[in-house]
Amino acid sequence: MDRKEFRDLASPADAREAIDSLPLEAGVERVPLEEARGRVLAERLDAELDVPGFDRASLDGYALRARDTFGADEADPARLTVVGEVHAGEEPDVDLETGQAAEISTGAVMPPGADAMVPVERTDEADEAGEVLVRTSVAPGDNVMFAGADVAAGERALGPGARITPRDIGLLSALGVDEVPVRARPKVGIVSTGDELVRPGGDVESERGQIYDVNSYTIAAGVEDAGGDAVLYPHAGDEATEMERILRQAAEECDLVLSSGSTSASAVDVIYRVIEEQGDLLVHGVAVKPGKPMLVGRLEESAYVGLPGYPVSAMMVFRTFVAPAIREAADVPEPETATVTGRMARQERYAEGRLRLMPVGLVTDGDGETLVYPVDKGSGATTSLAHADGVVEVEPGTDYLEEGSPVTVQLFSPDVRPPTLLGVGEDDPTLNRVLDRLEHPRYLPVGSRPALRRLRDGIPDVAVVAGPIAREVDAVDLGGWEREWGLVVPAGNPDDVTGLAELVDRDLRLVSRTTDSGLRTSLEAELEALAAERDSDRTTLAGAIDGYQFALRAHESPARAVQRDDADVGLGLADTADRLGLGFVSLGSQQVRVLANPDRTGKRSVRELKRALESGVDVDELE
Amino acid sequence: MDRKEFRDLASPADAREAIDSLPLEAGVERVPLEEARGRVLAERLDAELDVPGFDRASLDGYALRARDTFGADEADPARLTVVGEVHAGEEPDVDLETGQAAEISTGAVMPPGADAMVPVERTDEADEAGEVLVRTSVAPGDNVMFAGADVAAGERALGPGARITPRDIGLLSALGVDEVPVRARPKVGIVSTGDELVRPGGDVESERGQIYDVNSYTIAAGVEDAGGDAVLYPHAGDEATEMERILRQAAEECDLVLSSGSTSASAVDVIYRVIEEQGDLLVHGVAVKPGKPMLVGRLEESAYVGLPGYPVSAMMVFRTFVAPAIREAADVPEPETATVTGRMARQERYAEGRLRLMPVGLVTDGDGETLVYPVDKGSGATTSLAHADGVVEVEPGTDYLEEGSPVTVQLFSPDVRPPTLLGVGEDDPTLNRVLDRLEHPRYLPVGSRPALRRLRDGIPDVAVVAGPIAREVDAVDLGGWEREWGLVVPAGNPDDVTGLAELVDRDLRLVSRTTDSGLRTSLEAELEALAAERDSDRTTLAGAIDGYQFALRAHESPARAVQRDDADVGLGLADTADRLGLGFVSLGSQQVRVLANPDRTGKRSVRELKRALESGVDVDELE
Repeated sequence: MDRKEFRDLASPADAREAIDSLPLEAGVERVPLEEARGRVLAERLDAELDVPGFDRASLDGYALRARDTFGADEADPARLTVVGEVHAGEEPDVDLETGQAAEISTGAVMPPGADAMVPVERTDEADEAGEVLVRTSVAPGDNVMFAGADVAAGERALGPGARITPRDIGLLSALGVDEVPVRARPKVGIVSTGDELVRPGGDVESERGQIYDVNSYTIAAGVEDAGGDAVLYPHAGDEATEMERILRQAAEECDLVLSSGSTSASAVDVIYRVIEEQGDLLVHGVAVKPGKPMLVGRLEESAYVGLPGYPVSAMMVFRTFVAPAIREAADVPEPETATVTGRMARQERYAEGRLRLMPVGLVTDGDGETLVYPVDKGSGATTSLAHADGVVEVEPGTDYLEEGSPVTVQLFSPDVRPPTLLGVGEDDPTLNRVLDRLEHPRYLPVGSRPALRRLRDGIPDVAVVAGPIAREVDAVDLGGWEREWGLVVPAGNPDDVTGLAELVDRDLRLVSRTTDSGLRTSLEAELEALAAERDSDRTTLAGAIDGYQFALRAHESPARAVQRDDADVGLGLADTADRLGLGFVSLGSQQVRVLANPDRTGKRSVRELKRALESGVDVDELE
Repeated sequence: MDRKEFRDLASPADAREAIDSLPLEAGVERVPLEEARGRVLAERLDAELDVPGFDRASLDGYALRARDTFGADEADPARLTVVGEVHAGEEPDVDLETGQAAEISTGAVMPPGADAMVPVERTDEADEAGEVLVRTSVAPGDNVMFAGADVAAGERALGPGARITPRDIGLLSALGVDEVPVRARPKVGIVSTGDELVRPGGDVESERGQIYDVNSYTIAAGVEDAGGDAVLYPHAGDEATEMERILRQAAEECDLVLSSGSTSASAVDVIYRVIEEQGDLLVHGVAVKPGKPMLVGRLEESAYVGLPGYPVSAMMVFRTFVAPAIREAADVPEPETATVTGRMARQERYAEGRLRLMPVGLVTDGDGETLVYPVDKGSGATTSLAHADGVVEVEPGTDYLEEGSPVTVQLFSPDVRPPTLLGVGEDDPTLNRVLDRLEHPRYLPVGSRPALRRLRDGIPDVAVVAGPIAREVDAVDLGGWEREWGLVVPAGNPDDVTGLAELVDRDLRLVSRTTDSGLRTSLEAELEALAAERDSDRTTLAGAIDGYQFALRAHESPARAVQRDDADVGLGLADTADRLGLGFVSLGSQQVRVLANPDRTGKRSVRELKRALESGVDVDELE
């Protein structure tokens, strides 16, 4: 096996410097005014005209000569002859002399000869037709907006670097500008490599080891978040010629090329060749975890960063090293509100001599303080990111973060809202519907036993447990429901399965659940009872069941195996069998209970969950 | 003149309630995954498959049976026979027996018979071909990610109401989802009325009183900011039939119709008719300033809000009453960071019995405290908004806000960055270029005299003054430059103007600058000198100049009048004449000085301005 080794890892600071040394700026583009919101102005815009372009009446009323109103008041109005009217959008066709007035609408051009106006509310019609009584005196300029009083030609309207707001769009509209020079968004090409990847929407063949391509759309969304313009290239596979062609095309068309999965041996070979032929490799390997195999360099005229293939590693490297460079090039300010401080919810150990980028979740404790807990299902798991709120950077020298020690969390984005409720435990369809009634909950389906363990450690607000589990934890029971469990069989029950005994006695293939689950616990209890009946023991009977040890993690997975014809019988819920249109042999019903951390019963979300449970969790009611 | 009166004004709370009673929700739409970022999920998404869909090798190395490695270590490796290899994206074609291993790539399917894997780093090739030495022992499951370990089929993936982040896009990608059900954005139709309005990009005829339509694009940008989908309708003019047709079309196509300028008499008539025929008028007039003539109701099946025509009034009503309703319907959370507290920079008086929505600017004083000053060039001025940072709501009972009293400012949006520098004073082309070198300055070209007044009142950081102005204010001179001023004439100087005397003696039409400007002050001094020469007085000479009193506000405006052939001579700068390709008769040069508030010389932006001035303000150098 020929493998590239990463010796002499660059420091994170060196990697940042290398990326900063690559020019990502995309120049200037002109966009229509209606697309200018949020863009960054590339150059100063000076007013090319006066706003308004004429002396304008500010109200409905009468244009006149101020001098003609001197001394006028309610008791002793001035009497003027009305010689015409001017509406908005019309050229005045009167020229006022002393003693004359013209009816005028808001926004209309002040007629020649007039130097002020009086609002209609301060006038009366005179008894004589064609005359008006003015019951106030005005000074020259009163109720008139002079040409250029809002913006005058030549004035600096907006400066370079301004991020265009709706109000700026108002100003630009007033100036008649319908196209705005803005900083072009850096064009970021995204090339995913790997023969096993299928774009979402396609069909994956799991038996061939295919998986959906996570990085392309995720990194693209991150690029757009940072102010870049993401371009997805067709998926490159592992075939060298095709990969090289796509890389070169992306390098030609983009300011920055990101490849992911580029650290696999075959991809690295291709990237090396392209870089050697026309480019420059600046960094190969960085002392950061995850993200060690990161590459930084130039590909033809484009900047290039090679991201690891695992989604968590790719996103961590992207947000730590690449996103800041895109923001800088796009002139999008670093979000200010994107950090939160909290206390470590438990001790966390580190043994690595590398900067650790640790995804963490946040939960509020009973006193309203923020607890920070590591989320790590491994770099290959998308849920390591989806179930996290931000990142804690742990310096290379750190051996431990003690429980309770203060840490700074960089939120994934400034609009991250930490969940209101953190629940762990059993995976259950009724629970899923209950959660829909809460605002922004987080639920980790870790199974019943691990849930109780975590509740004891004091991190989650609630644990959801099912089946005959001994309660060894101090908790407040918020409520629960019953669920019918048993054996899921194909529709119509073609094997005429009637109960557990047949799994022991007949040649039927079972798919079970992991030992963490409440269903597995109930299954074991049921098998224990059968063993007692037969004067045997559980292990013996279990050994006679084909697939007893073949355990899947989620409540629907065994049923889906039956649906796919991969098994004759699946351990599952009546609810699931109904939903998937399969047959079902009931083995009983089990309690599902929602247990709260006693310190958290005052939390609003926990009280809301309790109310939701009390108001009934009947399936029909919730759908 | 027939006018609708607004009696019985609704309270702001009633107006809000009326808008809240109108359903704006636009239902659910399905968008492609790549457009889902930032959208709000409309329903729960459960996993429809296991991720990964198979037991997956986490590293490059060897798949094997854990039992075969028991007891193995560096000194005493286990020796296994390599019977095949499995790459990512391939179906394994081996079935391991005891004592066998298969080469395997990261992400590949674990072959049947294997229950663990060993990374290549912990192995060596054996001397015998086709064998591998395993120098560590592993347990079943080690370095394997089991099917469903990331996400299991049936698990709740994302709940309704989730605002989709790049990480959620990662999770959805992993599940193969390529289309996402999201809350549709409320469709908001925008109808501007008024014969005088021209869309930006068109030509305005100022002599007919035409102006650019400010509200359409501004309100549209505000709608998009609030999470709505803005639809601009063709400009309705004041013609009743056309206006009615457009209103009805908008009501049919949109969830909410906003009209602006709808408070003019002719527009109100049409809206009344449409509402009477099929609709409901809930509010007509609100006790708020600006915004009194606001309308709320239903037009056919659509919600309807009539906004005033003046840009400031329209935007204030929009952001205070309409934007929250759009955000609510779009399920976009109210921005949390959108308020700032500060102290009033000067006393402000109120006499109205209405809620006052006061646009304000922010400036940091020498101690880093935020000062809040009212920005009010009138409701008709776009710069009342563009030069403001937010709004202070002043309750109806308030007569005064004292200088120094604390106020809460609602920023126009959470990403508003108050300017780093507040400057006031002379309008000058060199200054405009100096300002380009600073980060996010605000400059109000109020003229030299008002600038000194404002500097004395303690609000701005710097005042820029020009010409022979007596300094009566305590200030620090940061530097300055000279500018050549004189008479701008048509290209080629067809009237052979040589100086000021000819304006007195010949029949030439002048356009001057306002008395606030440094150019006007220099002109007056020059005329004074001429009067002394002639044993006359300034007033007499000024009276002999046609247009001496015809004064424009901006440094370029007189030159532009010459360019347009509206005048023979304009008061202006050599720089302007050059730029516009006009002729120029110099009358001298004048100093432009930048004076700082003594308390603010330590501010970073003031120090940067000083450095910029010291490093040279030569025109060529700056361009």
